[in-house]
Amino acid sequence: MAVETGARRGDGGTVLIGVDWGSTHLRVHAFDARGGVIATRQSDRGMAVLAGAEEFAAALDELLSVDLDDGTAPILLAGMVGARSGWQEAPYAPLPADAATLAAGLQPLRFKQRRAAIVPGVSGPSDGFDDVMRGEETQALGVPPGTTRVVAPGTHSKWLQVQAGAVVGFSTYPTGEIYALLLERSLLGRGLPANVWSERGFLHGLDTAREHPDWLHQLFGVRARNVRDAAPAEELPSFLSGLLIGYECIGAKAAAGAADGEVAIIGGAQLAATYALALRRFGIAHYIIEGDTAFCRGLWRVAQAAGYV
Amino acid sequence: MAVETGARRGDGGTVLIGVDWGSTHLRVHAFDARGGVIATRQSDRGMAVLAGAEEFAAALDELLSVDLDDGTAPILLAGMVGARSGWQEAPYAPLPADAATLAAGLQPLRFKQRRAAIVPGVSGPSDGFDDVMRGEETQALGVPPGTTRVVAPGTHSKWLQVQAGAVVGFSTYPTGEIYALLLERSLLGRGLPANVWSERGFLHGLDTAREHPDWLHQLFGVRARNVRDAAPAEELPSFLSGLLIGYECIGAKAAAGAADGEVAIIGGAQLAATYALALRRFGIAHYIIEGDTAFCRGLWRVAQAAGYV
Repeated sequence: MAVETGARRGDGGTVLIGVDWGSTHLRVHAFDARGGVIATRQSDRGMAVLAGAEEFAAALDELLSVDLDDGTAPILLAGMVGARSGWQEAPYAPLPADAATLAAGLQPLRFKQRRAAIVPGVSGPSDGFDDVMRGEETQALGVPPGTTRVVAPGTHSKWLQVQAGAVVGFSTYPTGEIYALLLERSLLGRGLPANVWSERGFLHGLDTAREHPDWLHQLFGVRARNVRDAAPAEELPSFLSGLLIGYECIGAKAAAGAADGEVAIIGGAQLAATYALALRRFGIAHYIIEGDTAFCRGLWRVAQAAGYV
Repeated sequence: MAVETGARRGDGGTVLIGVDWGSTHLRVHAFDARGGVIATRQSDRGMAVLAGAEEFAAALDELLSVDLDDGTAPILLAGMVGARSGWQEAPYAPLPADAATLAAGLQPLRFKQRRAAIVPGVSGPSDGFDDVMRGEETQALGVPPGTTRVVAPGTHSKWLQVQAGAVVGFSTYPTGEIYALLLERSLLGRGLPANVWSERGFLHGLDTAREHPDWLHQLFGVRARNVRDAAPAEELPSFLSGLLIGYECIGAKAAAGAADGEVAIIGGAQLAATYALALRRFGIAHYIIEGDTAFCRGLWRVAQAAGYV
């Protein structure tokens, strides 16, 4: 199902089509000559449900077909669309990664005689291994100047360090995926309700993570509390979420060392508010920037560096 | 399928039937008057595949029916059979728990006019919450005198502290369950082979856990290494196992504080050897005792304390 938002249609005023293509979403933005977004369309045809170039092309064409532009604007795509199992693999760019680095690594794409390319993901050393990302590097280029720390929470949360408009380091935390697995598929989550939120449970989880570093044992506390009726079952999913997000924030804070300055939380309203609650609990200054906004600003910078606009 | 082992059949020499009934296994042991095991039968009718007293009684009767005893020996059962969703709930005994404590908490069971009871599980304070176990308390009572630290590895590993024949503390680590979830059902494990073992990968995981406390980030390293071809895919399941078991051992070692003495590893040959490798890597002295042996010795002590033998 395609959904259209934005003040007006793109048509002749569109100078760039920007595509945010993740595992589970596809969003297409039409930019005007000043870098403003004049229309957005989206569908649920994420990378995970598509296979082969034809399916990707068809999914994109579906959103473009109704006069988003006049059919000639160049197209820049970012996110999992450039993964090995995406439309076409875009090799990872190295750190440090700024708009020029990403522009230099653009992976050209054949699509309807248009100028089109995929923005590369980034790979680089984190604490212990070479980490990888696709999409968050573009979002991170879209945060306001002066921001040095960024978190993009989600299935695989990314914490990024930014200096002078370049991503200089990042680390992934698979917090959202492990939360869903434990709640929905493990014995630890058995008998717990889905889709309930308890701020009390969440804060208790955060505090438990801070006070008890023995994380694997603490995860079992979700089950033990339920078996012993030591906490209301309605609080335990949020308690688990607080535990995991707590350990994520504590680990990321330690990894950042003496770095200070506000953390930019990039994301949708609900998840961003949850992380804001966690950072506040841990005394970490922060602000929120909406995910689409950060993506579009960052992509525009790449488009400028590449001479697309 | 019922399987029979042991030197000879029980029949008239049997003074006690001991039942080890976990989530996925059922083992029935016939004891002679000196506490020796003279026959064992087992099936895969664990607690997880049974519901209601009749199904439990039938599963037990199936293994007893072929002259394990003369039909009059008393029966003691331990393990998940006493859980809320087991045959009959046996309330948890408190810490410290010795043979007398467990005997005092026996939960009588109606079964064919026999004297029969379920050994209670144990609940008590661990680091942060009241932990729970069923079955491992019986195994821990069966380790040689002088042992002060015990680990029963598995889906939910238990680390126990023992003093003067009593369990005085314990902590659960859901290591096996999380390993299986991550390998079989998560994006982190996607594309990795099943049923391969790599000592090199396992040791690398142990060392990584020791050197990098930021565990949630390190779990993503399994995926990143695969995506970047930074390690052979055949090594990564064992690397993940080493990470998780490493964090478990590090956490349990810290929780034990200054306690020293050998750790008794209770378990089957393969898993016990894996944990022995981990403890050796971390410089923790240990020995292995087979799980059935520990269980039968511990259950015999409970039977003596209860006047069953």
